[in-house]
Amino acid sequence: MTTLETPGPTLGVVGGGQLGRMLAEAAGPLGVEVVVLDPTPDCPAAPLAHDQIVADFDDEDGIRELAERADVLTFEIELADQDVMGRIGEETGTPVHPKPSTLETIHDKLVQKRELAEAGVPVPPFREVEDADDVREAIDDYGAPVMLKARTGGYDGRGNVPVESKADAEDALESVAGPAMVESFVDFEREVSVIAVKGEDEVATFPLGENVHEDEILRETIVPARSSEAVTERAYDVARDVLEVMDGRGVYGIELFETSETRGTSETSSGQSPRESGGEILLNEIAPRPHNSGHWTIEGTQTSQFEQHVRAVLGWPLGSTALRSPTVMTNLLGDVEEQRPAQLEDIDEILETPGASLHWYGKRQARPLRKMGHVTLSAHDEGTSVDDLLETARDLEAAVTFRS
Amino acid sequence: MTTLETPGPTLGVVGGGQLGRMLAEAAGPLGVEVVVLDPTPDCPAAPLAHDQIVADFDDEDGIRELAERADVLTFEIELADQDVMGRIGEETGTPVHPKPSTLETIHDKLVQKRELAEAGVPVPPFREVEDADDVREAIDDYGAPVMLKARTGGYDGRGNVPVESKADAEDALESVAGPAMVESFVDFEREVSVIAVKGEDEVATFPLGENVHEDEILRETIVPARSSEAVTERAYDVARDVLEVMDGRGVYGIELFETSETRGTSETSSGQSPRESGGEILLNEIAPRPHNSGHWTIEGTQTSQFEQHVRAVLGWPLGSTALRSPTVMTNLLGDVEEQRPAQLEDIDEILETPGASLHWYGKRQARPLRKMGHVTLSAHDEGTSVDDLLETARDLEAAVTFRS
Repeated sequence: MTTLETPGPTLGVVGGGQLGRMLAEAAGPLGVEVVVLDPTPDCPAAPLAHDQIVADFDDEDGIRELAERADVLTFEIELADQDVMGRIGEETGTPVHPKPSTLETIHDKLVQKRELAEAGVPVPPFREVEDADDVREAIDDYGAPVMLKARTGGYDGRGNVPVESKADAEDALESVAGPAMVESFVDFEREVSVIAVKGEDEVATFPLGENVHEDEILRETIVPARSSEAVTERAYDVARDVLEVMDGRGVYGIELFETSETRGTSETSSGQSPRESGGEILLNEIAPRPHNSGHWTIEGTQTSQFEQHVRAVLGWPLGSTALRSPTVMTNLLGDVEEQRPAQLEDIDEILETPGASLHWYGKRQARPLRKMGHVTLSAHDEGTSVDDLLETARDLEAAVTFRS
Repeated sequence: MTTLETPGPTLGVVGGGQLGRMLAEAAGPLGVEVVVLDPTPDCPAAPLAHDQIVADFDDEDGIRELAERADVLTFEIELADQDVMGRIGEETGTPVHPKPSTLETIHDKLVQKRELAEAGVPVPPFREVEDADDVREAIDDYGAPVMLKARTGGYDGRGNVPVESKADAEDALESVAGPAMVESFVDFEREVSVIAVKGEDEVATFPLGENVHEDEILRETIVPARSSEAVTERAYDVARDVLEVMDGRGVYGIELFETSETRGTSETSSGQSPRESGGEILLNEIAPRPHNSGHWTIEGTQTSQFEQHVRAVLGWPLGSTALRSPTVMTNLLGDVEEQRPAQLEDIDEILETPGASLHWYGKRQARPLRKMGHVTLSAHDEGTSVDDLLETARDLEAAVTFRS
C-alpha cells in the first residue's frame, strides 16, 4: 500500500544535468521532491529541482548531506562513485538504486560484457587487450576493422576508437589511454534500444526505438523501430535477460545492434527466412539510468522513462509503457565552432508544428556537439508514418540555429 | 523570430498554488524559469519553481522584486491586486499578461457580466441588487430560485447562494455580505467549459469539456463533452467572443451552461430540432488564468493549458490543441473532517491503471473539500468511451483515502 505525504518522498540524485532536470519534471506531478548534487552551480536540473547541493560527484560530505535529506539515492551519471554511494547509503540507511554493485559492473565495459555473456546475453565477440600485439591478434581473429574501447569513463562514444588495420593499433591504444578491450565490429542493419525498468517485483519494457548515430552521438530515435516483429520480440527478450543481471531498481537504457544477417546463434522462428525475420540482436552497451534514446517516452508513452525511474527507485508500482502514437526524437546538438553562451534562434517552427515538443536543457554554454535539447515529434493523425515524422523532425532540427 | 537563451526568460507568477506548480512543470521543457510570489513558505509551486518570493499577493516590495526578476508578469489567482501589478509593471517596464484591466473587469462579477452582455456574449438575465427588496423583485421577474452572487472575492462557488424563495432573501444577502448581484437560475442540461488562449496575434480553443460539480466545486471534467456538434461549435463561438472582450495575452477558463431547451435567443441552425441541436450556450463565469477544468490537457492534448499560458504571456507562438484521446479528469478533494497533515493512502490502483496519471499538489494540510490533487484518465485503446473512462475515474477516486 503506497501512501503519499506532504512533503512527499525526496529523491536524492547524483548529477544535475538534463537527465536530472527531466527527472525533476517527472517527479513534480507525483508529489516527489528532487534534490540534485552537481559541482556546477545552476546546473541544468537546478531550476526544476527543490534544491541543489553544489559538490563534486564523489564528494563524501555532499553525498552524505544528499543521503540524509533523501528517502532514496539514485544517480543520473555513470561518473557517480559507486564505492562512496554504497558506503554512505549503508551508513545513513538510505537505499541506493540501482545498486552500487550494478554501477561497478557497468563502469568497466570488460566486466560488464563478461557478466552479460556468462548470463547468456548475446554480445559481439570481445576480449581484453593490454598492448598493441593483443589488438593485432584480435584483428587476425575477428577481421578488420575492430572496435577498441576504453574500459572505463567513456560515454557518447568517447573512448571508442575503430581500428581499421593492424598498422593503426598503436595510435588507437594511445588515444584510448588506459585499460582497454576490443570488440568485433558489428555489421549492423540498425541500432535499436530498449528502455527497460526493474521495479520492486515487476519489470517493464518500453517499445523498441531505432537509433541513428553520427560521430557516435545519438541524433534521432524512431519509434516504433522499423524492425520485424520477430526481431522486436527478440530485443525485448534480450532486455529482460539483461535486467536479470542488473541489481537494484530503476530504468536501464539497453543499446542493441540488429545485425544485417542472421548468424549461427540466431534464434529466429523456423519457417521464416532471415530477411523476413531480420537479423539477430546483439548487446552493445547498457546505461543504468534513463537514456537519451528514451526521451521520446515523455510524449510517446503513458508513463515516461523518467516517471518510471522515479516510481521504480521508490518501490512504487510501475506505469503503463503503451505507445500513444508513433514518435520521433531528434537531438539539438551544439552547432557552434567553439564554446559560447547558448542561444538557440528561430524556434518558431518547432513551436508551431503540430505534434512537436521542444525540450531545452538550460545549459549556459553551447559547445560543439553538446546535447543542448531535443525535439519530440508525435504523429498528429492516423496516416502519419515514422518516415514522415523523421523527415519533419529533420526539417525542424535544421530550422533552428545556434548563434555563433 | 523567437530565440531561446540560457538562462531562459523568467516568468514572474503572483500566486504559488497548484496552478503555479503546473505552470512551472510546463515551463521547464521550454527552458523558461518560473519565480512565484506567495505568502505561504513552501507553497505548492515552491519545489518546482526556480524561486519563491514569500510575500502577500498585494505586497508592493515583493511584487517589485518579482517584476525586476521577470521578463513578464502573470498571476494564477484572481486575488492578485490589479492596481499594484499594473503600476509596478509600468514602473519596471515589465509587461503584465493578462492585462490588469482584464483582471479588474473579472474581479467584479457585475462589471464582467455587463461588459460581456454589451459585447453580445449570451449571459443569463442578471441585475445588481442592493437590498432584499431588489432580490425579491428579481424573483418576481425571473422566477424562483435565483442565484445571489457576491460581486467580488468568490471562487469555487464561494459567495454564490441560491435563493429558493422571497422569504430567504434577507438571510441570503447577509451570508453574501457585501456588494451583490442576482442571476436568473439556469436550468442547464450540462455545464461545459472552453479553455481558450489569446496569443500575440492568434487565438486557440481547447476541445470542449463537460464539467460535473457538486456543492459548487468541480469534481470531474469529461472530454469531449457529450454535447451535440452544433452546441460544441456554438461554445467555441462564444469563447472566441469572450476573448475579444479580454485584454492581454494568456489562458482563460470560460465556464458555460448548456441549457436544457433552446430559447428565443438561441441561434441553432434552421432545420434542426432543439433536441437534435441541443440547448443554447450561456456564459457562467470566466477565470483569467489556467483553470481546473483544463487540467486534463496535460495528458489529453499536444500542448497543455499551462504550456499555452507560458507561450502566450511570453508572446511565443501557440501550440496545437488537438485532442490526443478521450480523457476524464477527477479532482482529489480533501476528504477529512477537519484540517490535518495531508496523507493520501492507497495510491497503488491509480499508479497501476493504464492511462491514469496522478497529480499531487504538495499541499501540507488537507482540509474538507480542499483541492489536493487530481487524476487524469486517458483512453488506453480505441474502444474506450468517455462513459467507460468516467466510471473508472470514479473508481480510482474512491479507491484512495485521506488519513483522518
